[in-house]
Amino acid sequence: MSAIPDSILSDTATVDKKAVEAIPNSKKIHVIGSRPDIRVPMREISCSPTQTQKGLEENTPITVYDTSGPYTDPEASIDIRKGLQPLRAHWVAERNDTVELVGPSSNFGIERLNDPELQKLRYAEPPKPREAKAGANVTQMHYAKKGIITPEMEFIAIRENQRLNEYKDATLLKRHAGVPWQSNLPEEVTPEFVRDEVAAGRAIIPNNINHPETEPMIIGRNFLVKINANIGNSALGSTIEEEVEKMTWSIRHGADTVMDLSTGKNIHETREWIVRNSPVPIGTVPIYQALEKVNGKAEDLTWEIYRDTLIEQAEQGVDYFTIHAGVRLAYIPLTAKRVTGIVSRGGSILAKWCLAHHKENFLYTHFEDICELMKQYDVAFSLGDGLRPGSLADANDEAQFSELKTLGELTKIAWKHDVQVMIEGPGHVPMHMIKENIDKEMDECHEAPFYTLGPLTTDIAPGYDHITSAIGAAMIGWYGTAMLCYVTPKEHLGLPNKDDVKEGIITYKIAAHAADLAKGHPTAQLRDNALSKARFEFRWEDQFNLGLDPDRAKDFHDETLPKEGHKIAHFCSMCGPNFCSMKISQDVRDYADQQGMENMDDMSKEFKEKGSEIYNKL
Amino acid sequence: MSAIPDSILSDTATVDKKAVEAIPNSKKIHVIGSRPDIRVPMREISCSPTQTQKGLEENTPITVYDTSGPYTDPEASIDIRKGLQPLRAHWVAERNDTVELVGPSSNFGIERLNDPELQKLRYAEPPKPREAKAGANVTQMHYAKKGIITPEMEFIAIRENQRLNEYKDATLLKRHAGVPWQSNLPEEVTPEFVRDEVAAGRAIIPNNINHPETEPMIIGRNFLVKINANIGNSALGSTIEEEVEKMTWSIRHGADTVMDLSTGKNIHETREWIVRNSPVPIGTVPIYQALEKVNGKAEDLTWEIYRDTLIEQAEQGVDYFTIHAGVRLAYIPLTAKRVTGIVSRGGSILAKWCLAHHKENFLYTHFEDICELMKQYDVAFSLGDGLRPGSLADANDEAQFSELKTLGELTKIAWKHDVQVMIEGPGHVPMHMIKENIDKEMDECHEAPFYTLGPLTTDIAPGYDHITSAIGAAMIGWYGTAMLCYVTPKEHLGLPNKDDVKEGIITYKIAAHAADLAKGHPTAQLRDNALSKARFEFRWEDQFNLGLDPDRAKDFHDETLPKEGHKIAHFCSMCGPNFCSMKISQDVRDYADQQGMENMDDMSKEFKEKGSEIYNKL
Repeated sequence: MSAIPDSILSDTATVDKKAVEAIPNSKKIHVIGSRPDIRVPMREISCSPTQTQKGLEENTPITVYDTSGPYTDPEASIDIRKGLQPLRAHWVAERNDTVELVGPSSNFGIERLNDPELQKLRYAEPPKPREAKAGANVTQMHYAKKGIITPEMEFIAIRENQRLNEYKDATLLKRHAGVPWQSNLPEEVTPEFVRDEVAAGRAIIPNNINHPETEPMIIGRNFLVKINANIGNSALGSTIEEEVEKMTWSIRHGADTVMDLSTGKNIHETREWIVRNSPVPIGTVPIYQALEKVNGKAEDLTWEIYRDTLIEQAEQGVDYFTIHAGVRLAYIPLTAKRVTGIVSRGGSILAKWCLAHHKENFLYTHFEDICELMKQYDVAFSLGDGLRPGSLADANDEAQFSELKTLGELTKIAWKHDVQVMIEGPGHVPMHMIKENIDKEMDECHEAPFYTLGPLTTDIAPGYDHITSAIGAAMIGWYGTAMLCYVTPKEHLGLPNKDDVKEGIITYKIAAHAADLAKGHPTAQLRDNALSKARFEFRWEDQFNLGLDPDRAKDFHDETLPKEGHKIAHFCSMCGPNFCSMKISQDVRDYADQQGMENMDDMSKEFKEKGSEIYNKL
Repeated sequence: MSAIPDSILSDTATVDKKAVEAIPNSKKIHVIGSRPDIRVPMREISCSPTQTQKGLEENTPITVYDTSGPYTDPEASIDIRKGLQPLRAHWVAERNDTVELVGPSSNFGIERLNDPELQKLRYAEPPKPREAKAGANVTQMHYAKKGIITPEMEFIAIRENQRLNEYKDATLLKRHAGVPWQSNLPEEVTPEFVRDEVAAGRAIIPNNINHPETEPMIIGRNFLVKINANIGNSALGSTIEEEVEKMTWSIRHGADTVMDLSTGKNIHETREWIVRNSPVPIGTVPIYQALEKVNGKAEDLTWEIYRDTLIEQAEQGVDYFTIHAGVRLAYIPLTAKRVTGIVSRGGSILAKWCLAHHKENFLYTHFEDICELMKQYDVAFSLGDGLRPGSLADANDEAQFSELKTLGELTKIAWKHDVQVMIEGPGHVPMHMIKENIDKEMDECHEAPFYTLGPLTTDIAPGYDHITSAIGAAMIGWYGTAMLCYVTPKEHLGLPNKDDVKEGIITYKIAAHAADLAKGHPTAQLRDNALSKARFEFRWEDQFNLGLDPDRAKDFHDETLPKEGHKIAHFCSMCGPNFCSMKISQDVRDYADQQGMENMDDMSKEFKEKGSEIYNKL
């Protein structure tokens, strides 16, 4: 087994070319808010005109939510050694409730900084960390409860609306009503609405004051469903450069947040590189690193080591922490008769600690101490589901639901401190048992946003678990889950590579979008309508470009019909030129348009006179 | 554009090697029924033993439903030039209600037989076609209504049960109750139950008397959810050999029926090769071929040409016909304002015919004539949804539901003739509008089996429509759809190749199985439990082999951990050896097993004394 490479960032390291390439027919636009430094990025996809019998008809460009950050902005200069511009730094500073430190204050952070061996790995000029002034609380929830609308909230309101008000085309605006479970979506997201949802705990804005590079986003069931991509090395491979690449790759394809789950060496340094270059919130599971610090001996974990890890990571700018504070000692025996025991890494580590000491989980007993820390940086909780089911057989069992109840108690405590909270969910659950998960979560966790891994709806398809889980993810998203953690085709089998990451993300964009449609999100159906219209009109390039993966759509089309001329053809190789229903149907409609559908007798006669043939002479 | 190749079957043509390769650790078994010629094929997957502290514990082999036919039977001799053994020929003959003809009786069949140019394409010795004796009705529904249990019905009962009664292992037998919509699944499928479901029209057994090579199967919501794979060339490519290969490839991966949707030249000959070599029912859309016969001019279609086509195909052994008899003249104007008009090929052809003549659809007006033909061969109806929505915007609209109502009327007529019927369904439907489709179908089509294409739950992912549709397929399967028509990644873009066919099938096996689980089908969870147990016990090979695609699972695993030794390792590259929750959880359980979970104090002490480390020294 190879050791971890020490030379992590090669001298020639640049951001992956594929990740900064222009997206076909797309341009980065910025919508400006009430002040010039609220510049909300979106992606505008231009479309070609429709050829009608009366001439050309323009098609409205489609604006889509854009997670890709400055990487797809031709006007931004990208240098991963310097990181992204700290867009939010001024907003944080002007609130005047934080102080800048001289450097890291965690023991571990100081130690790593002073280790000359690490020079070659280190991000060159990390920003000075900030923390709240003594007694201050700097969370978005804190501001929201006070009635303050922050620039972050206004940014998010603009971002969620996706310029809906600017569309006039009736075809694009066609929309089914949707069934939003348990709440109602607003027709237009206002900054006030964002504030109210955050104040109520129904949504969170993960944005650590030490990660001012982020473009603010929100996670809550009354907003667009978000997706998370996991990256991170394991002891078996992958370099810092590869991990930064996975991050840029992930956001290009639509990841709304990225979790760095690294468990190998040099995770402190890896994280710095990722955070400094990430325009999306970064989440971590601090217990992974804490365990590294005690050489993997779970029973040697202490509150002090864990606390130091929280400070270390909060000062680097991690936006949310998965914390398995609900794995209580008394629940561990409930897992003994399961088919697959405990399948959460964090959960199993804490179970081992609890058993070794026969003590209550120290994350549970120190929960208020953790809240005290979180509110100094505005790190959000992602309360971990350490006892989630790892197989259908274990779904919705006593262990799982006992922990969920505890997460509800902890949510109340966090909210007392105005710390933002989301709740992690399963796992492996058959379709008919999915809704119970979110119903219980809503009830027992007081409507805090739910953040689920899938769930996988069957265990029998290793190699295809992005699909087994997308089924569950789409459903639970519709039922009200706010963010979906992706699953890649490599789940259960190995560490995903870049292709797997992309496959997982696109699959989860599908699940999230299907959920937005079923909820009746006001902007969701626009893109479907635009793409369907392009499809029906044989605007092939528009069909590709409006899709989630223009490159693949084009490649698949070109595999059988490679010539440029075929991209204006009124058929594809699936049915060939003579059997294309879209083509025939167009003929029927054109004919109907000319004639008016009422006068069917005349239509019939003229139709025959014109000798209209289904076959298209090539 | 290349012409269609004339040399279709090369001299060296054999069945594709990959399609007859042994499936890892699997063997073909046959369960014998009440008479020795009822030999029901199944696949038995053997598992390695579990290593426990007390020694080795055997794991029960798992029996799974097997669609692959004799191709995976090492005792069968396969020669695609001679076709498969006619297993059911004796059952058909002994009923003594059919006669053997001297040769094809359709005009077109005779013409093709007498064309010397076609010699090189033709299947060498096609069997003599049979038809019902004058006045006889040879459908399974006819027998069922008379109270007769045919060998086909007994075969199906054994097949559906998958040897469930032979399992003793409590872990394997764990099972959630499921929510079967609108009906209850039996704990054990009996031949009587099969008969009753067929008599009631709630299930069909597609098996033309001229396709005695089939292994009988059933399509109905109180049985396992089935999947269909479409094959067939278009005018743009693919040879007979390729199409036969796609069929063997499809059934290897789990297609329960195969539709031959060829629209190019030589489709008569292509079909003969496919039917003679197919152990699963074959469906077609006869209007495609009828249109070829009138050189693609829809308005030249006549009842006589269509009728001749039905006889031609019925005599070859096609098991079910998609017939778009519900596309009534009056419904066509309802499609004019749609975003995507008519997207069914058959639907658009008939719409054009109706408009050209301003006459009612001749399939509708001749429906009783069609029934008279179908019952002479036991060809089942698949009543086509010619007006299904081709985009979310058009979902559940008046055109679609008007046609569905008509399909319900036609179902009653078909049943009057004891002809078996299933109903085709959409299409593109957002999640929250899916259930209405099956509710209406059950109500208006009198519980005839529903057979849906997806539905796709969003339009925005060309290149990934196997996934957008698997979400909808799993849901509608759970709600009671009996068979799911697969969608491949090439949908909307081009003709699928073999990889696409496989990807589509595995994706749909996932959807169908997820539906079986959610309905609580008695046998469904067994395989999930067996695989999860293998996963938890690090029996890697068993995990691969119990999955839907052992090859891919193994490849994905080996990509990062290729050595043989790693296939007994207690970790994978996803988390590495030190962070594997399954491994830690096993430790916790082993410890608990030794100690009894009650005595937690002692446990804690001993756990520490043993110095149990989470890190696994490699």
